[in-house]
Amino acid sequence: MSLQTIINDPERLLQGDQISDVYKKDTYVADVAEVQAVALAKTTDEVVMLVNYAIEQDLKIIARGAGTGVAGAQVPIHGDELIIDVSQMKQIIGLDEATMTLTVEPGVPLSEIQEYVESRGYFYPPDPGSKHSTIGGNVATNAGGMRAVKYGTTRDYVRAIEVVLPTGETVELGSLNIKSSSGYDLKNLLIGSEGTLGIITKIKLKVLPLPKYKKSVLLAFDSVTNATDGVLTILANGIEPTALELFERGTIAYSEKFMKQNLPIQSGDAYILTTLDGNEMESITKSVQAVKQLLQDKAIATLSLNAEQEKQAWKLRDTILVALMEFTEFEMLDEVVPINRFAEMIGYTKELEEKHGIRVINFGHAGDGNIHTVLMKEDLDHAAWLVRREAFLADLYKKVAALGGLPSAEHGIGIVKKAYLEKMIDPVELDLMRKVKNAIDPDNRLNPGKLV
Amino acid sequence: MSLQTIINDPERLLQGDQISDVYKKDTYVADVAEVQAVALAKTTDEVVMLVNYAIEQDLKIIARGAGTGVAGAQVPIHGDELIIDVSQMKQIIGLDEATMTLTVEPGVPLSEIQEYVESRGYFYPPDPGSKHSTIGGNVATNAGGMRAVKYGTTRDYVRAIEVVLPTGETVELGSLNIKSSSGYDLKNLLIGSEGTLGIITKIKLKVLPLPKYKKSVLLAFDSVTNATDGVLTILANGIEPTALELFERGTIAYSEKFMKQNLPIQSGDAYILTTLDGNEMESITKSVQAVKQLLQDKAIATLSLNAEQEKQAWKLRDTILVALMEFTEFEMLDEVVPINRFAEMIGYTKELEEKHGIRVINFGHAGDGNIHTVLMKEDLDHAAWLVRREAFLADLYKKVAALGGLPSAEHGIGIVKKAYLEKMIDPVELDLMRKVKNAIDPDNRLNPGKLV
Repeated sequence: MSLQTIINDPERLLQGDQISDVYKKDTYVADVAEVQAVALAKTTDEVVMLVNYAIEQDLKIIARGAGTGVAGAQVPIHGDELIIDVSQMKQIIGLDEATMTLTVEPGVPLSEIQEYVESRGYFYPPDPGSKHSTIGGNVATNAGGMRAVKYGTTRDYVRAIEVVLPTGETVELGSLNIKSSSGYDLKNLLIGSEGTLGIITKIKLKVLPLPKYKKSVLLAFDSVTNATDGVLTILANGIEPTALELFERGTIAYSEKFMKQNLPIQSGDAYILTTLDGNEMESITKSVQAVKQLLQDKAIATLSLNAEQEKQAWKLRDTILVALMEFTEFEMLDEVVPINRFAEMIGYTKELEEKHGIRVINFGHAGDGNIHTVLMKEDLDHAAWLVRREAFLADLYKKVAALGGLPSAEHGIGIVKKAYLEKMIDPVELDLMRKVKNAIDPDNRLNPGKLV
Repeated sequence: MSLQTIINDPERLLQGDQISDVYKKDTYVADVAEVQAVALAKTTDEVVMLVNYAIEQDLKIIARGAGTGVAGAQVPIHGDELIIDVSQMKQIIGLDEATMTLTVEPGVPLSEIQEYVESRGYFYPPDPGSKHSTIGGNVATNAGGMRAVKYGTTRDYVRAIEVVLPTGETVELGSLNIKSSSGYDLKNLLIGSEGTLGIITKIKLKVLPLPKYKKSVLLAFDSVTNATDGVLTILANGIEPTALELFERGTIAYSEKFMKQNLPIQSGDAYILTTLDGNEMESITKSVQAVKQLLQDKAIATLSLNAEQEKQAWKLRDTILVALMEFTEFEMLDEVVPINRFAEMIGYTKELEEKHGIRVINFGHAGDGNIHTVLMKEDLDHAAWLVRREAFLADLYKKVAALGGLPSAEHGIGIVKKAYLEKMIDPVELDLMRKVKNAIDPDNRLNPGKLV
């Protein structure tokens, strides 16, 4: 069967010059290799036929959503890759209120899912930075985001996935059952596998009732270490913040400059911005008081935000990356360390700043040990940037490993972090990963050269 | 190396007549095959040496804890199995308050873990029925229990496991990092794999701060259907009960007879017993009021329990199985269906009671769709029991599958439910499970013939 027979619509089948450069890149990686063809599938059946076509023609396959990835996982690197773009599989199939499950196709943007469920009184908690990203990509990378500290990551909201395997077979992994001890957990194996084990064609998501109220608090500290101590204190006292973000003064300053608005507290070297949600305002108020009381000695200033301030503070937080883009080229990392090593890790990035002459800023999801260290090119020339950057990253990931951390908390490994992952994890574990990949995809057809 | 060299302590190495019949059985399965030898390991190194010995001698291996399983997973079925009993690896290595992690050896009984953390102000939520079960077994079966509706199952509390692989290599899967998108999720693959992929030799558990308060409510309904509707109503309104148990009048009657105590409400055909916990009594009181108000039309009686009544009601619930043992031989199942099919499933067991002439009672974790249907032998002779039981189970699991359910919510598949699992899940999924097993354990050395 020819590609034209499978995708009988010239607008959904791109070859040669028709292939836009978009398909050779993601947010940070570009132009590694050419693309054989791009097929914009609309149904699972089309995906199955495309996989069978790739088997016949011995092509490799990359599944792709919105292309908002940051690790190069969707980027072709061999030149013989057929890209199956699922961004047109974007139907929200339906919300089943009895089982609190939303069934969607993989190409639905995250923002649409959030709007859809919230307008019906439900809540899909995972909240990665890019709202344009597709849910399929979120599942493939186990995307995290701001609310993971209370609600967990994408993994925790996937009840079931329909997957097209490298054999061309289709299978549903997981189910609407809340508990299972019925065989190997293949659903979790596929989640976060970055398109290397199967192509996700349908997703059943768990949704929650939408919490009725929320309240945010901003706390300023005179050092990142004190702010981190504050985070640990909050968590150890059984308070469950919805979000618990930490950022440095130097980081939020970029947003302030870009938005021409200031954070309501200006003093301090580091901040915690935290939100508490729930169904009873009284209980939230108590938690807010508890946070302030627990940290009254550690923090140099605390402020319960009114609705206006809350909106503004979170907008400033959300704008960090967009603001940075105005000022410099940069690379954002997503390393993760055990929560009690957060301050030490951030401190070390400052040492590396000195050592390698690359300016860094940090922000992150302090409640789960996930730091976004940002390396900024600023005035460095391209060659110096590349050399210093590589040396910086080598040191940084060595430290991450020494602290018991991992290279990626929520963005995935792709090609960008593959060499670091290989150095950081136990060779026995890496070997196990390769055995599993080889068992499920013996021809190395799905997203070859990524992750493992 | 001989077994005697590896385990240089005659009390920890059993062969021939020294092997007690205990090693040939679990709670329900007995005497399928003989045991080659039993080694009571005390360290990971010993486990490694034992695995290498089994490789040399081409023996199969079963890892075993307290033997409280109910699916035959720890029972030898070939006669060439070396049992590695880890019940003497029972050290609680330590609680790390900064990362809220408890490190334990696999042979620690669940009850000890609960006492250890609670006496220090922490909470390990998973609460399967058998408190004598070891944590290693809990991880190997992804044990569930009463509190899964709010807190999840064992899987949700495992941060990392040290595993001895069938190659004799040792690897730690998972980490103290709360988030990860750094490669395949092998930790979750091992959890619930019933000893078929690796032997768990150390476990790092996530613990929570101990909630300060709790309160229980008992509600009576005139039918299981109305009680199930009540469960759905509670969950759909954003109330998060710690436990949400449903049982029939005929079920709790056994406990009442055995304990010579009565449930504080006697009217009704079915009950919901629910507990709410948290750090603020006011908020719990509000939830209790909300539950009562939401269900005032559906329930025929509701009662907030005082401390004494709460203790007694939960004791009655916990005693169901022990009480039953006094009255009859029985087989307890742990089927799971989507929560909105709970009543239909229980209703169907009543049809099967008529059809096959086996008395059944039901109780279960209604908040997660997990039913414990109990088939009672009563006065049936052995032959009739076996024949009717088989026909009953064939019908029952067909219905479970038709409702989108699974054979095991929390006990595991072992040998008891293997044939049913094979009929109930997609052959493509089964084939994937076998590929994974074969990739990790190509000689089929670990717990052969179980699960897949």
